[in-house]
Amino acid sequence: MKIKLKDIEAARTRINPFIHRSPVLSSRLLNEISGAELYFKCEGFQKTGSFKARGATNAVLKLDEKLAQKGVATHSSGNHGQALAWAAKKRGIPAYIVMPEDAPAVKVAAVRGYGAELIFCEASLAAREDGLEAVIARTGATFIPPYNHYDIIEGQASAAAELIEDVSNLETIISPVGGGGLLAGTALSAYYLKEDIKVYAAEPAGADDAFRSFHSGELVRSHQPNTIADGLRTTLGPLNFEIIKDLVSDIFLVNDDEIIDAMKLIYQHLKIVIEPSCAVPFAAILKEKDRFKGQRIGLILSGANVDLQKLPF
Amino acid sequence: MKIKLKDIEAARTRINPFIHRSPVLSSRLLNEISGAELYFKCEGFQKTGSFKARGATNAVLKLDEKLAQKGVATHSSGNHGQALAWAAKKRGIPAYIVMPEDAPAVKVAAVRGYGAELIFCEASLAAREDGLEAVIARTGATFIPPYNHYDIIEGQASAAAELIEDVSNLETIISPVGGGGLLAGTALSAYYLKEDIKVYAAEPAGADDAFRSFHSGELVRSHQPNTIADGLRTTLGPLNFEIIKDLVSDIFLVNDDEIIDAMKLIYQHLKIVIEPSCAVPFAAILKEKDRFKGQRIGLILSGANVDLQKLPF
Repeated sequence: MKIKLKDIEAARTRINPFIHRSPVLSSRLLNEISGAELYFKCEGFQKTGSFKARGATNAVLKLDEKLAQKGVATHSSGNHGQALAWAAKKRGIPAYIVMPEDAPAVKVAAVRGYGAELIFCEASLAAREDGLEAVIARTGATFIPPYNHYDIIEGQASAAAELIEDVSNLETIISPVGGGGLLAGTALSAYYLKEDIKVYAAEPAGADDAFRSFHSGELVRSHQPNTIADGLRTTLGPLNFEIIKDLVSDIFLVNDDEIIDAMKLIYQHLKIVIEPSCAVPFAAILKEKDRFKGQRIGLILSGANVDLQKLPF
Repeated sequence: MKIKLKDIEAARTRINPFIHRSPVLSSRLLNEISGAELYFKCEGFQKTGSFKARGATNAVLKLDEKLAQKGVATHSSGNHGQALAWAAKKRGIPAYIVMPEDAPAVKVAAVRGYGAELIFCEASLAAREDGLEAVIARTGATFIPPYNHYDIIEGQASAAAELIEDVSNLETIISPVGGGGLLAGTALSAYYLKEDIKVYAAEPAGADDAFRSFHSGELVRSHQPNTIADGLRTTLGPLNFEIIKDLVSDIFLVNDDEIIDAMKLIYQHLKIVIEPSCAVPFAAILKEKDRFKGQRIGLILSGANVDLQKLPF
């Protein structure tokens, strides 16, 4: 593995003064419904409202001083942009965020609130990359990618590390997968800290590139996502895929109706706000009840930056 | 005062094995918006999803064994019914809950889930009282009223007691007021535990009987409530009013638009699910910014049993 245990430990030491140790919630009723013991790691309470604050902070703090002063840039459908803007503000350096025009209004407002410069583009990956290239040419800022970067993966690994420390005898962890930053970090933390934990991923059926990559062994490099889980419309990264194919036990697909049902149960019984993307792992557990029956399972609820006007219920 | 400090302490000892010590959350952004330091006591994470579990448990546990075996009964728009059903189940006795036909579906389902017998009636107070009388005549169950009862007030007092212990140097506590159980309990805890805390109440303008009672000195005994805050449509109780008029500093009114705006800010920035009733104190702080500027304020978020299909955004 390119990322070692000591890298994850160093990342945790680096970012801990800035991030929250997010709470782990459980619900008797959700346990009854699923037939398992579920521990929800609630990254919606994290700084900037998602786990992305972890990786972004790690990447920003690792930059040398000279580079840092020119700022950081990225393209993001929202949470990474928000996290990078916030992390840059914490270090006192500029941030340039390229966002698709259809990004949720609440995410756009948050990036603005952290003082970053916003550059809008069309929703395609090509348009985002062009926008990013232009801003980097203009400013000399360093590109901090949303997931396909070891510094990001190291940072995201801290969420599962906390979960493993906070809940004894976990048998399974299940993470959503979009670009693969959270999933790769989760798999690495489990591998180093408690090797017998099985790590699974859950993905929207309408954005199933990680599923197809995992089962074919060949990275699917583009897709046409169509899912309510806006945080998971990104394409799996090659660095992420290398880790995931070695350390992840399986990837499950769930459709949007299953995602919405799971999301509703979490709102009703955990009493917390989550994004649709967050509900994907719980939806997979409900779909695969027999496989998970009776297990102690950690679920990473990745974020809570949802447009309230677009709640699907 | 009829309720002494030792009564509140005894109630806490009695109910603590059954209830949660609910978390206190804060948000940098909500502090900025309000110009004050806000500490939200999140009773939505309480057993049964609201503070009502406190008073109901206290009342159920205080019944002597012979009476208890015949069960308990009440009429409730939802949260008290749910709490009483749950508390009765904990003691292993029957519960009979009279509910208006228009009660939120999620509350009806929860009462059923706790194994109580449900009796539906029209939405008027008179219809509820008739339904209750009939069930008591049939079963011999003891009526546990939603708020106009010292055992209930003693139990509800525990929420503010925890808040005062958990947040140092609070200057103000603000509670919603419907029937007055939570407000009277809050005022008593502040009076006994930290007398210099000012206790305020916030009430929907469309259900302003507590406001009118407080300012006229005469209890308003009925009203025609019209507000989104369904938990606060009840009429202030006489026992509650006696405590409130002595110990509460002021009552503020907010309209439904102000309630919805405050509710939305709490969903967006605290990332938790709350009922409209919960947002009323925060709405009052936003409306009375100058009065509360710079203060350390505890807000009791009373519950999280909301029909997701009826969210006002």
